[in-house]
Amino acid sequence: MNYQPGLHIIAEISSSQKHLLERSAAVKALLDTQVIKHGLSKLGEVYHDFEPGGFTAVICLSESHISLHTWPEYERVNLDIYLSNYQRYNDDTGRQLFDELVAFFGAGIISCQQIKR
Amino acid sequence: MNYQPGLHIIAEISSSQKHLLERSAAVKALLDTQVIKHGLSKLGEVYHDFEPGGFTAVICLSESHISLHTWPEYERVNLDIYLSNYQRYNDDTGRQLFDELVAFFGAGIISCQQIKR
Repeated sequence: MNYQPGLHIIAEISSSQKHLLERSAAVKALLDTQVIKHGLSKLGEVYHDFEPGGFTAVICLSESHISLHTWPEYERVNLDIYLSNYQRYNDDTGRQLFDELVAFFGAGIISCQQIKR
Repeated sequence: MNYQPGLHIIAEISSSQKHLLERSAAVKALLDTQVIKHGLSKLGEVYHDFEPGGFTAVICLSESHISLHTWPEYERVNLDIYLSNYQRYNDDTGRQLFDELVAFFGAGIISCQQIKR
């Protein structure tokens, strides 16, 4: 079997809902639900809230990883969703997760690249 | 102050040293050392070794994150090094870390993109 490239979505999004960018609890609750809903396998995670606001989060999956880094003072979230297709085709799941996160943050898309790798 | 884009290195590298791709302990030891040497701030990490071989690792940093996903059967490592420039200019550090990981794996570079974000 040949290597099946996965889809890595690399996006910068903008949100004026600063409370969602200042603390990670709300997006963690969303991701906990969505990871299960999409049948992904979480191996571990790190969420870290900075003072006075902003957070960084990495969710390690069997399928690769999700990361978020927020800068509330710039109304900005830098988001990565990388799902491999090693055991199952996950490109559509990655795009759905991206849409769900954009909706959650009420965000505008500054830039979004989709890299097959 | 305006947002200072960081450097995200997104690379696929190839290594025939399968033992380095099968278990994470050796690269963890390297990264533990290099994170300190480069003055980066680790917030947490997840290393997960798969059976029969291969691993996934995400290192969460104040400066953003490092991730590695290996597929020994394809002699392949997909590597991300993303360091923000929020508190300090880190582009050169990111490039040095990349060179150090390529040297560690004795790797050939399949592809390498550098994204300012």
